[in-house]
Amino acid sequence: MFVEKIKTPGLAHLSYVVGSAGHAAVIDPRRDVDVYIETARNHGCRIGHVFETHRNEDLVSGSGILADATGATVFHGPNAAGDVAYARTAREGDSFAIGKAQLSVLETPGHTDDSLSFVLTDPAFGDDPVAVFTGDALFIGDVGRTDFYPDRAREVAGLLFDSLNKIVSLGDQAVVYPAHGAGSVCGSGMADRELSTVGYERRNNPRLRIGDREAFIEAKLAEHHDLPPYFSTMESLNLQGAAPMRAPAALAPLGTEDMKAALGDAVPIDVRSAPAFLGAHLPGSLSLPVGMIAAFAGWLLDADDRLVLIADDAVEAASAARQLGRIGFDHVAGYLAPSLPAWAAMGEPFGTLPVIDADEVRDRLDRACDQWLLLDVRGDEEVAENPMPEARHIYVGEIGRRLDELPENRHVTVMCGSGARATVAASVLLRAGFRHVDLFLGSMGAWHSRGYGDD
Amino acid sequence: MFVEKIKTPGLAHLSYVVGSAGHAAVIDPRRDVDVYIETARNHGCRIGHVFETHRNEDLVSGSGILADATGATVFHGPNAAGDVAYARTAREGDSFAIGKAQLSVLETPGHTDDSLSFVLTDPAFGDDPVAVFTGDALFIGDVGRTDFYPDRAREVAGLLFDSLNKIVSLGDQAVVYPAHGAGSVCGSGMADRELSTVGYERRNNPRLRIGDREAFIEAKLAEHHDLPPYFSTMESLNLQGAAPMRAPAALAPLGTEDMKAALGDAVPIDVRSAPAFLGAHLPGSLSLPVGMIAAFAGWLLDADDRLVLIADDAVEAASAARQLGRIGFDHVAGYLAPSLPAWAAMGEPFGTLPVIDADEVRDRLDRACDQWLLLDVRGDEEVAENPMPEARHIYVGEIGRRLDELPENRHVTVMCGSGARATVAASVLLRAGFRHVDLFLGSMGAWHSRGYGDD
Amino acid sequence: MFVEKIKTPGLAHLSYVVGSAGHAAVIDPRRDVDVYIETARNHGCRIGHVFETHRNEDLVSGSGILADATGATVFHGPNAAGDVAYARTAREGDSFAIGKAQLSVLETPGHTDDSLSFVLTDPAFGDDPVAVFTGDALFIGDVGRTDFYPDRAREVAGLLFDSLNKIVSLGDQAVVYPAHGAGSVCGSGMADRELSTVGYERRNNPRLRIGDREAFIEAKLAEHHDLPPYFSTMESLNLQGAAPMRAPAALAPLGTEDMKAALGDAVPIDVRSAPAFLGAHLPGSLSLPVGMIAAFAGWLLDADDRLVLIADDAVEAASAARQLGRIGFDHVAGYLAPSLPAWAAMGEPFGTLPVIDADEVRDRLDRACDQWLLLDVRGDEEVAENPMPEARHIYVGEIGRRLDELPENRHVTVMCGSGARATVAASVLLRAGFRHVDLFLGSMGAWHSRGYGDD
Amino acid sequence: MFVEKIKTPGLAHLSYVVGSAGHAAVIDPRRDVDVYIETARNHGCRIGHVFETHRNEDLVSGSGILADATGATVFHGPNAAGDVAYARTAREGDSFAIGKAQLSVLETPGHTDDSLSFVLTDPAFGDDPVAVFTGDALFIGDVGRTDFYPDRAREVAGLLFDSLNKIVSLGDQAVVYPAHGAGSVCGSGMADRELSTVGYERRNNPRLRIGDREAFIEAKLAEHHDLPPYFSTMESLNLQGAAPMRAPAALAPLGTEDMKAALGDAVPIDVRSAPAFLGAHLPGSLSLPVGMIAAFAGWLLDADDRLVLIADDAVEAASAARQLGRIGFDHVAGYLAPSLPAWAAMGEPFGTLPVIDADEVRDRLDRACDQWLLLDVRGDEEVAENPMPEARHIYVGEIGRRLDELPENRHVTVMCGSGARATVAASVLLRAGFRHVDLFLGSMGAWHSRGYGDD
Repeated sequence: MFVEKIKTPGLAHLSYVVGSAGHAAVIDPRRDVDVYIETARNHGCRIGHVFETHRNEDLVSGSGILADATGATVFHGPNAAGDVAYARTAREGDSFAIGKAQLSVLETPGHTDDSLSFVLTDPAFGDDPVAVFTGDALFIGDVGRTDFYPDRAREVAGLLFDSLNKIVSLGDQAVVYPAHGAGSVCGSGMADRELSTVGYERRNNPRLRIGDREAFIEAKLAEHHDLPPYFSTMESLNLQGAAPMRAPAALAPLGTEDMKAALGDAVPIDVRSAPAFLGAHLPGSLSLPVGMIAAFAGWLLDADDRLVLIADDAVEAASAARQLGRIGFDHVAGYLAPSLPAWAAMGEPFGTLPVIDADEVRDRLDRACDQWLLLDVRGDEEVAENPMPEARHIYVGEIGRRLDELPENRHVTVMCGSGARATVAASVLLRAGFRHVDLFLGSMGAWHSRGYGDD
Repeated sequence: MFVEKIKTPGLAHLSYVVGSAGHAAVIDPRRDVDVYIETARNHGCRIGHVFETHRNEDLVSGSGILADATGATVFHGPNAAGDVAYARTAREGDSFAIGKAQLSVLETPGHTDDSLSFVLTDPAFGDDPVAVFTGDALFIGDVGRTDFYPDRAREVAGLLFDSLNKIVSLGDQAVVYPAHGAGSVCGSGMADRELSTVGYERRNNPRLRIGDREAFIEAKLAEHHDLPPYFSTMESLNLQGAAPMRAPAALAPLGTEDMKAALGDAVPIDVRSAPAFLGAHLPGSLSLPVGMIAAFAGWLLDADDRLVLIADDAVEAASAARQLGRIGFDHVAGYLAPSLPAWAAMGEPFGTLPVIDADEVRDRLDRACDQWLLLDVRGDEEVAENPMPEARHIYVGEIGRRLDELPENRHVTVMCGSGARATVAASVLLRAGFRHVDLFLGSMGAWHSRGYGDD
Repeated sequence: MFVEKIKTPGLAHLSYVVGSAGHAAVIDPRRDVDVYIETARNHGCRIGHVFETHRNEDLVSGSGILADATGATVFHGPNAAGDVAYARTAREGDSFAIGKAQLSVLETPGHTDDSLSFVLTDPAFGDDPVAVFTGDALFIGDVGRTDFYPDRAREVAGLLFDSLNKIVSLGDQAVVYPAHGAGSVCGSGMADRELSTVGYERRNNPRLRIGDREAFIEAKLAEHHDLPPYFSTMESLNLQGAAPMRAPAALAPLGTEDMKAALGDAVPIDVRSAPAFLGAHLPGSLSLPVGMIAAFAGWLLDADDRLVLIADDAVEAASAARQLGRIGFDHVAGYLAPSLPAWAAMGEPFGTLPVIDADEVRDRLDRACDQWLLLDVRGDEEVAENPMPEARHIYVGEIGRRLDELPENRHVTVMCGSGARATVAASVLLRAGFRHVDLFLGSMGAWHSRGYGDD
Repeated sequence: MFVEKIKTPGLAHLSYVVGSAGHAAVIDPRRDVDVYIETARNHGCRIGHVFETHRNEDLVSGSGILADATGATVFHGPNAAGDVAYARTAREGDSFAIGKAQLSVLETPGHTDDSLSFVLTDPAFGDDPVAVFTGDALFIGDVGRTDFYPDRAREVAGLLFDSLNKIVSLGDQAVVYPAHGAGSVCGSGMADRELSTVGYERRNNPRLRIGDREAFIEAKLAEHHDLPPYFSTMESLNLQGAAPMRAPAALAPLGTEDMKAALGDAVPIDVRSAPAFLGAHLPGSLSLPVGMIAAFAGWLLDADDRLVLIADDAVEAASAARQLGRIGFDHVAGYLAPSLPAWAAMGEPFGTLPVIDADEVRDRLDRACDQWLLLDVRGDEEVAENPMPEARHIYVGEIGRRLDELPENRHVTVMCGSGARATVAASVLLRAGFRHVDLFLGSMGAWHSRGYGDD
């Protein structure tokens, strides 16, 4: 009996292959499903069941796709927002033999109404739960967010409290396998630690230690979570079921002329590192380094946008296209084959984004220039914990929708925690026509390291 | 904080990379160490510590090799049979920061005097043990063998009892990471399940449920374990430290003439599947299918034997050489490049091993032929559980040393559980000059499936 | 400017990626087209053109599939047997810029009416042909077969003579890139050498050295070529265009019960090595070792057969499914996950094929037994060159259709060059119900090595 | 019989595996030799011979290393500058059977005194050369440089003329396999085309078309070639034989503190793309993008320099270490694990390199500022062909040795063909303490595209 964890970087999404004696089940597969089939095959197992802990709002589900490829049956919880086209309904107490292992269903609503947990037992040894797949109900160090039904806020927080009690009652010995790890948009207090048990969480998870139902509800109501606009697209896609991932094979290298033609109706996405964007970039391109696509593409792009990529090489472009496909952005026409210097050597225009350091920011603040604005694009919780009072604050994800709060002719210096997200935000300003933008590299980290925040 | 489990197939050996915030430790590395370096690098970590839970007797330790490659420091427990040349001594209570994780030492003697366990904690959350690396003290579903010091048998079994209590006292919530999984020569009762916790084991592990020290000791004394002769070679090698694994690159394809020359002083090892050996093989070759090398090479071969391989292709040959190198057999001269039919087409001699089924065995038993012997090569415990009274029993590992118990001119049919190990044993007989050997394919499994064992 | 040769093992099929300055063309792509896209991308090139030298009869063309994946345009010669649904027509003198390279069309009919050659020039240096892609007109050491239009035999042989003269007139310096290498069913005299030029062939290719048109025609008319029955399926498939290759991901491991259910309506194909089949196999299975699928599946299987595989492991099964897919056999339900010994241990029946050597054959021939037949399954040309007068001869590919020539109750020993193809043929006899079949391992090779053929 | 070409990117170095019937030879192997062993093994061949066309001055030879790994014998030409420690001497007329292929030695001095060519024949067909491995005597579109013996300049140019005639006399049909392709430092006129024959070169290679010996000598004397300082290190290394390549496994990720410690005595090499260096870099680091290491590391670094890398990720760092090792730079301590923004967020200092475009350069030239210098770092031939009279010219490779020609307090804008090499040169200036440096992105290419060079 084995459990293999499949991590999807960027999304901090965790899915699982559970197998025993020639049979395997997959829990919460992502859209590019080959990894599950290969994992099962490496263990000599055939995938017969696919389980969803809930309807994912932050990525395209691969359940239907995996079922098509393998003949497996998909199971989803009751009370979904509609019929999940590719799934049957699983309910409390349903139990499935996966070889010699057993997977049983717990209904654990709260994060969503259709949330399930799956309890793994080893009947050869007894009834004690070996592990539990908790979806977005229980994370390592945190619990699921409960802000998806604003008009039922108290109710669903209470439902989650009850669901967590159900999970705790499985016993301290049960290993916990959640649907997300640290870095997910589905919860911000998760531990950086990748392993835990019910017992460890019971004693150390701050939310789980709240014994009182009302206190728990109050704590949940006080939380703030970002709600990227693409969540609604994902939700409807994950009711109907998505098409398989487009083969990265089809991603065409574009010469200079091809790229210029493509720019007519496509958004150029620069997936190189932030420093490369700072040094030179295509005018009008959005900076979305590969590792940040999962976090921010859903904020910055529309589902129907045609995209072209600027990447360091074909491998990076293919990786970017895969990241985009996992959250439903399929219209990637190709990537720029020549390097930026080669592009520039054809006489094509390029932009550059000036960089300043903490000392220069200190100076400017001291000079208190009227025509200058320091823009902090960190998340609300970061700002609350670690304020930069001299800066105007707009979250990087919202910058595109709140441009009118910024005077376009003002000189803007963008900052975040280190300068990476600030580069993304600065690229949005440049694309929107802002002319005097620069970047505070090192940002909040450097500010404190230099001792400036401690006055 | 992550724990990555590295399984070594065949040996059922488990080693681990534990890492956090740029730093990693490796526990019980095998001889081919690239996988640890790559795993650490994939997490952006540098290996600074290598820990040994005890001196491995069943495989070549890679600790010294890994230290040479990375600059890491190796730690080994006290009371080893001698000085571990490449290691410092770690003692109860020693504690090591691995990034933001903490690893603390428990002395857990019993299996060996130098056995350590390592307790993983996450100081950001508290002192509760997250996990424990138990070496050969505690397995999933079993505990370590205590038969390595025959004259101190009661004492060391008692030591293990005390060590296990130490581990249990870490709390139900701690994940258990042992040094072996099911299929190891280091314990026969292990669960097929790859995950567990202290709590699950406390309630379900048959040995751990024995509350009484004396009863535990008696149970341990009643156990029987095989002791492959290569264990002693491993033990001395793992005091001094072994050379790095020989590059599989150097494994030469041998043409027919090259192979004939090599056969002058080398043992031909046939690593193809058992059926391929049955169909056609080089005269005098030993059958050791790739997946069985770890289990039986240490019984059948001497440390200094020069070896040549017969494999289906270069990939299989390289895999076999790697398996051999992991247990210290380095003298592999090459592999036969032509296929068996091509070898035979050069006019070279070949052997074949006739196959019979359960009905034929039933017939022969009924005919009670005097010149015929049914030889059962299963392990003692299997035979005890599931006897085949009509057969003579000699364990496959011991067959080479007990040939004189078999009348050489008798017709011998070899059996095991399915026919795979029987093929290995039959090849030993053929190499020793037995002329009338055949194989009961299906063996004990088929015997019962056909209803013959149930009379 | 580069030319990358893509070999398809088994089929001895050669296809090419030609590229320059960001643009690439593919010549004669096979059905699994990812390799072309990757090759082009590794050179920073986008595939804009796909060329077919003729309508392939021995494998599924990937031209339409590649065009769908990349947006490229496919070109095919005039006078095809019908409209090639996915292609435009290219004619003598048409010329295409591929970056800075130029590809020009030569009509070179004879092998087929629609045969084209493509001449590569480097305009930066001049008009001299750098290379020529000759399809099935000119091979290394041989020329194309001209037996596809039996009623126009003289005419098409003459057409080929004229086409070859066209190619020779390109000059000695032109590198020759044919559509097949040694081992193809499309010509039997090919050199084992993988590289040549027009000059080398002009002076050393036996067919090309025939200066007289009539003599050439006579020589071609005297040739005999096998015509595997699947050629006709390929031809019609390659007019319409095939579906993309089925993902090997979908190949399911089958447990014993699943396999027994599948055997109800599927043909079991044993893709393990010949010796493994000899040692133990599923009753009724056909032996088709992976490397022989391309050569013999088209003879032994019907296009609509449902297939299940017996393989050594999942990797071998996937490779076999890919080989089958390349020649149009798509209905592979899965492969047997347990090993043969494990299958037998479930009490399931198995077969074995006895093996004899040259001495035993010599003995039997000397004893001149009436009830015994030696069956030689080599190709006609091999038998002509190297006769075995004591044997009955039927080509391995035809054995299934000519079973009535063999007395079913006779004891049959099968032979070929080494014993590999004989194993395939023997499996056909066993599946057809022959009871007394054995195999001459070493076959013709051993016969001569032992000095028996030289009397 | 096959020939597999192994390209080493960056160095434009070509090596070959020639094989037939189980045997293989390797011609001019590079230092990391696994690729040759794998290639031979994929063809079922054992490497028995290694041939050197001459003593390589531009990369570390892998001949001795490959011989150690495989047991092969190395052959080198006569008249080397000393004894090649790991090789026997091969002379005109020596001939070696490689399976069924034959390789014969031609002495072809001129580029070096020890230069050999190897003629490949296929005895099964006749004596006509199939191909010739020409080392640095004949390239595609060019011939070898003859400037290594300045005091024997006329003599060695004449020797090369004679050697080329020898090669031409092999016949138009012979395929040409040189030791370098376009982009090598061993010849600047090479065609971008990767395939050719003696006949094609005879008619189209500008140097080969010079029929008169004296005219050829004059033409060679008129050539100018760069002579990177590391050539002399390579030459002595390739007499003694180098140690095997250091395992990239050992390349350690360095945290911020580790990096700061390492910077005490190590040169930081930034192997990210040029734009990333422009955007942000470690103060004092040299820009050497991975693809430019082979071309410029030998100019900018000393053989004994300790190095640390700044890379986008571990894969890029490992690739850079491999490129460095191929030309003898082994002392790479590790690479910076955090990204540049993360480094900056620790409060560590960073630099940035301002970028200007063609319009700005035009403006500055028009303003004719005294304190400003335009520095062109292209090669001499490029400048001759395509002059930029307004700029001071120093070749990028020589900039480190000619810093005193530049006024340190002047504002310097660096340019090349596109801006990539200019970034390398600018990093040398910055490391040397120049304070006012910027970069003309697009450089000569943009200058012409904008129409500025055409006045």
